Amino acid sequence: MSSKVKFVQGNEACVEGALYAGLEFFAGYPITPSTEIAEHLATRLPRQGGKFIQMEDEIASMCAIIGASLTGCKVMTATSGPGFSLKQEALGYAVMAEIPCVVVSVMRGGPSTGIPTHVSQGDVNQARWGTHGDHSIICMTASNNQDVFALTVEAFNLAETYRTPVILLLDEIVGHMREKLDLPEPGEVSLVGRLRTSVKEGVNYHPYLPREDGRLPMSDFGGVHRYNVTGLFHDMWGFPTDNPTAVRELLRHLVDKIEINASQICKYKEFFLEDAECVLVSYGSSARSALHLVEERRALGDKYGLLELQTLWPFPETVVREKCARAKHIVVVEMNMGQIMQQVKLAVDKPDRVYLVNRYDGVLITPHDIMNILRLIQGKGV
Amino acid sequence: MSSKVKFVQGNEACVEGALYAGLEFFAGYPITPSTEIAEHLATRLPRQGGKFIQMEDEIASMCAIIGASLTGCKVMTATSGPGFSLKQEALGYAVMAEIPCVVVSVMRGGPSTGIPTHVSQGDVNQARWGTHGDHSIICMTASNNQDVFALTVEAFNLAETYRTPVILLLDEIVGHMREKLDLPEPGEVSLVGRLRTSVKEGVNYHPYLPREDGRLPMSDFGGVHRYNVTGLFHDMWGFPTDNPTAVRELLRHLVDKIEINASQICKYKEFFLEDAECVLVSYGSSARSALHLVEERRALGDKYGLLELQTLWPFPETVVREKCARAKHIVVVEMNMGQIMQQVKLAVDKPDRVYLVNRYDGVLITPHDIMNILRLIQGKGV
Amino acid sequence: MSSKVKFVQGNEACVEGALYAGLEFFAGYPITPSTEIAEHLATRLPRQGGKFIQMEDEIASMCAIIGASLTGCKVMTATSGPGFSLKQEALGYAVMAEIPCVVVSVMRGGPSTGIPTHVSQGDVNQARWGTHGDHSIICMTASNNQDVFALTVEAFNLAETYRTPVILLLDEIVGHMREKLDLPEPGEVSLVGRLRTSVKEGVNYHPYLPREDGRLPMSDFGGVHRYNVTGLFHDMWGFPTDNPTAVRELLRHLVDKIEINASQICKYKEFFLEDAECVLVSYGSSARSALHLVEERRALGDKYGLLELQTLWPFPETVVREKCARAKHIVVVEMNMGQIMQQVKLAVDKPDRVYLVNRYDGVLITPHDIMNILRLIQGKGV
Amino acid sequence: MSSKVKFVQGNEACVEGALYAGLEFFAGYPITPSTEIAEHLATRLPRQGGKFIQMEDEIASMCAIIGASLTGCKVMTATSGPGFSLKQEALGYAVMAEIPCVVVSVMRGGPSTGIPTHVSQGDVNQARWGTHGDHSIICMTASNNQDVFALTVEAFNLAETYRTPVILLLDEIVGHMREKLDLPEPGEVSLVGRLRTSVKEGVNYHPYLPREDGRLPMSDFGGVHRYNVTGLFHDMWGFPTDNPTAVRELLRHLVDKIEINASQICKYKEFFLEDAECVLVSYGSSARSALHLVEERRALGDKYGLLELQTLWPFPETVVREKCARAKHIVVVEMNMGQIMQQVKLAVDKPDRVYLVNRYDGVLITPHDIMNILRLIQGKGV
Repeated sequence: MSSKVKFVQGNEACVEGALYAGLEFFAGYPITPSTEIAEHLATRLPRQGGKFIQMEDEIASMCAIIGASLTGCKVMTATSGPGFSLKQEALGYAVMAEIPCVVVSVMRGGPSTGIPTHVSQGDVNQARWGTHGDHSIICMTASNNQDVFALTVEAFNLAETYRTPVILLLDEIVGHMREKLDLPEPGEVSLVGRLRTSVKEGVNYHPYLPREDGRLPMSDFGGVHRYNVTGLFHDMWGFPTDNPTAVRELLRHLVDKIEINASQICKYKEFFLEDAECVLVSYGSSARSALHLVEERRALGDKYGLLELQTLWPFPETVVREKCARAKHIVVVEMNMGQIMQQVKLAVDKPDRVYLVNRYDGVLITPHDIMNILRLIQGKGV
Repeated sequence: MSSKVKFVQGNEACVEGALYAGLEFFAGYPITPSTEIAEHLATRLPRQGGKFIQMEDEIASMCAIIGASLTGCKVMTATSGPGFSLKQEALGYAVMAEIPCVVVSVMRGGPSTGIPTHVSQGDVNQARWGTHGDHSIICMTASNNQDVFALTVEAFNLAETYRTPVILLLDEIVGHMREKLDLPEPGEVSLVGRLRTSVKEGVNYHPYLPREDGRLPMSDFGGVHRYNVTGLFHDMWGFPTDNPTAVRELLRHLVDKIEINASQICKYKEFFLEDAECVLVSYGSSARSALHLVEERRALGDKYGLLELQTLWPFPETVVREKCARAKHIVVVEMNMGQIMQQVKLAVDKPDRVYLVNRYDGVLITPHDIMNILRLIQGKGV
Repeated sequence: MSSKVKFVQGNEACVEGALYAGLEFFAGYPITPSTEIAEHLATRLPRQGGKFIQMEDEIASMCAIIGASLTGCKVMTATSGPGFSLKQEALGYAVMAEIPCVVVSVMRGGPSTGIPTHVSQGDVNQARWGTHGDHSIICMTASNNQDVFALTVEAFNLAETYRTPVILLLDEIVGHMREKLDLPEPGEVSLVGRLRTSVKEGVNYHPYLPREDGRLPMSDFGGVHRYNVTGLFHDMWGFPTDNPTAVRELLRHLVDKIEINASQICKYKEFFLEDAECVLVSYGSSARSALHLVEERRALGDKYGLLELQTLWPFPETVVREKCARAKHIVVVEMNMGQIMQQVKLAVDKPDRVYLVNRYDGVLITPHDIMNILRLIQGKGV
Repeated sequence: MSSKVKFVQGNEACVEGALYAGLEFFAGYPITPSTEIAEHLATRLPRQGGKFIQMEDEIASMCAIIGASLTGCKVMTATSGPGFSLKQEALGYAVMAEIPCVVVSVMRGGPSTGIPTHVSQGDVNQARWGTHGDHSIICMTASNNQDVFALTVEAFNLAETYRTPVILLLDEIVGHMREKLDLPEPGEVSLVGRLRTSVKEGVNYHPYLPREDGRLPMSDFGGVHRYNVTGLFHDMWGFPTDNPTAVRELLRHLVDKIEINASQICKYKEFFLEDAECVLVSYGSSARSALHLVEERRALGDKYGLLELQTLWPFPETVVREKCARAKHIVVVEMNMGQIMQQVKLAVDKPDRVYLVNRYDGVLITPHDIMNILRLIQGKGV
């Protein structure tokens, strides 16, 4: 840890990001392909004065970090598809009770236990809609170790800023692939700390009364203020209510604090988009193949470009619409049956120009795979 | 109970449908607003020779019906949002292992514990995407007791036909409202029984080898054949495989057995659509208000029509596109933030003509609410 | 031959058609996969009083039928790709000298000797452009034995009507597949005989002076009239000229006699086109797979249709444009790299909607192959 | 001949180019209007140590240069339409067996023997599609002696680089017109030599295994390695195969080695295109008239421009689309019935803006002819 450059797996880059961001409490239950996150934190986190606990299951892990976050800690858990399914009910509680936490899910093939050791990007829609009821959520992803690090830090920052669970949705290739990671110095990347209330002990504290800027200062649970935290619709004191106006306003608040700030939240990278006639939209490890292809075709004079999404939810609708406005073909490259493709169709002006280039057999989609399908889309046959 | 006409709650109509369809095993855990289903079945099912068991929680209930289905029983569980979230992991197992079962979820307000005793239609997307991984699923809904009965029977038929979990997604108003139910005679509605293998004892049985028509005959677990059932990707014997071709083909099979048969599976009702210029698309209790409004406006000479969806998933894309082809305004009426509205936008030729008329404060949307918003959509102001 | 129904290969159906049409002289050189045509004619033709000769090579075969045609016989040769390449120079002579003849080419994989025993549709553009210089030509194809028979008869009729070589371009699957052939009675299908001049012996006969209807009566060479036949541009007596007006008019005549009559010449079949949103355009054996798929999808409620081309050249531009006018996707199914696809693009109003579904590895494209590529084209991914 | 500037026919410029490029073996059979090429080489080539042979016919000439090329020589043949038709079968062999050779065809009027001593550009499509089966080919042309020289050299370079026949398609006017030719010094224009294998004698040499860059090193036939050369589909040792994957990959290789490098291969000249509203597209001698007209109209202030194509195949689709993107009228000037016009239609975004200005009576199209037709196109009447 004294050297600045490391050669690590993506899961370790995530660990480095979490530690850099100030992680204080991690609870989890091992599951391939996320296990290395827990494994490395088990050693590293206590050395930095944090707590690591392996819980009896996935549900307990989620509940533990929710509790720890309420007491004032920066918290995280890590899992994969089946575990992520089990966490959905408690995740909804964190959404409703506005509890900052980072949930890493390293995707493998699904549904069910699926193919544990192979890559997939099949949990994108689950990250958005896995828990019941209308809500909004933040979900980030990355395609290389440097970005895994950066987005893990960002996930903590966003969780604290918006008092919300943030999903970091990696995939098996990104999690397990080893490549260089250049660690920034402490202070080089700015961190968002817990926003604590300035209300003094003995004075009325309204845990669910947003400030003018929409943010809700917290008070460490078990500290100087006593207050209610519930998964039911609630008023500014945290007490249950079924008053229609209160219900409506709380739901709008939960959704708007994220959707209204979408342009601040959404991160993406672009490559050769200025004059691109064929725009590839991708994310995670499939974006690596997409970029490779784009560079290859540019060398041949073809006007290909890549929009790499790093924020999946809230879906970066405006960015996608604008970047694809002049494209003749908009091609979503992903390793599932078209989950982000549907969002792209909803975002762009001409949905008929949106195509899916995909693979979902546990094998990384290659630049060659992409090109083969592109030929068909461009009407050129096999 | 000897008389053919009853005056019952929607939850009881569901019970009647399940019994008519041949339910043999129910496991559940009580949760508002679905509790009456368990309550009535606790008395009625044993009298018909079936088994009723209240399990220790929602996960156990889901697992119990999966096991019972494998032994050859027609099975069901019932729950609401939070319980439905907990069931997602086991639900994915049923999808992967192709286990027929009916899961009723009576929607209340969410996310989290939300508003237990009030109406919502906020779990539509969760029914589709709650469990991880690409998959397909069947989800039905209804707006009145007669249809609740009919669609409960249909849910069992579809579960057996396609060897898949079928979600019956009711809402609190439909579940709790009392109205007339006219019970058909036994034999009046045709039932689909378990498709059992004709392979004899001692002969090789391939549990996961589809017949030419795509269906997979089952063998009662614990009976004459020994075979493997797993949530992992598997071969025709049910044994795990990560062979890319096998993975791809199993996933395609799981999805195609439903998507390809969408036109057979999809049920809907239409009212005044022939010449409608303003097409309302709705489902569940909000469709009652929509229908009321349409009839009111027709009496005034306005060309309003209603497409009431009874199948939500697979989304009846073709029906929606065709029925909305000539509409100037396509208005989705639902009690959430626009979950079905997005699907309608994806289905129709001119997404710009799709509008959302909704409410999500726990109160039933009224014809008056709809009309107020319609005026705005039609450019007539408040 | 006394029975009306036969169970034969496509190549035999072609033989039956030629005999029915009145074939009197066949010269050829055996080449897979056309050999059965020569083989059966070697026995059958002499029995009907015709002449069969196996020449020393492909060029000689072509020259022999040209000579025989000039003497007044209905003539044919049969070959495959490499032989068809060798015949191109003499074929141009027949075009220029306006000599009725039928040239069958049963396509195998190319270029060069390629894969002699496997299917391909790679010689479509060669049939149009294989010989040098601007010209027009008639080229027919068929997908089943009954049509092979009918179109062979039609090929002879067109050759005589327009005094032109007619190419019958079959493919290996069609040539070798055995299926039922229902033979019409003599007289049931009308035949076009040689149009002979009414000019008497001793009176000036202008061999290259078209009648008002554009047709040129012939005089059996070696008979009562002496005249010149040349591959050079010529005047109405058949003597060479380089007068620009004469050159221009002869070339226009050669092209217009076919292009202007395209609507009379062009044959096609249509299946479910009235309301088709996805129009498949195909021909030969690939049209069999296309039809199978269309019927399969119609049964599922999808609006697929098939336009089966039987005339490839002159390209049935008007038919294609009209039949595809309302289609969202126009999909050319062929077993080459897109030769007819380019013509479809040139014919339709919206070339961007034209896609290619193909295969060129010597294996018949299957309905499943087509569907897999259609999914990609429709933006649905693999 | 010692002086650097010569006053020669185009056919002689071609001879100079071939000698400069390192021609070592020429086989041919005389045919107007290409005869001067053979005539001059008969004297010149032996003096440089090369071999000249007049064969018994066109087919033999083509076969001779194929054999000589395999032994390691740079080779060429020259012909015109009828001879080019005869060469098509052997040309396909050179395509399949990947044998570098240059085939000059000096176009006269066709079809058939046509008008031997007059100009035409009617063999453009034959150069692409004359031999059977899917394939790709390189075809260059030129409009003046300096370019004939340069493109002859380039033809040899491309033949060696891509192991393919290269067609040099001149026309009678260009071949016979005398004008200045400024000969470059040896070394001034870079030459591509034969890429020979570095595999030693006695070590396994795979004649058809492409290197990573797609090129296939050759071994002089009759030298240290024994290997098979065939026109059948073959594996990396050159032995026949009908394995579908091998067939598909070889065909893709044959096509892609050319199509993928289209932007490197394609040569063109542009005149006044920056702001041209009326873009003329032409090649060969007709481009001379087109350029004359463009310069004349520019002097009058009209925004005319010329795109002169030097590579006809692979068709320079990207160049044409880009250069014509802003044009109101795109006018193809050629001396045939619109062969390149069809390709331009396929390439540009708005095919409706493409017009044909042509002549096919054996007389060179004049600037005046072009202007007369342009007036009509521009709606100005005759």
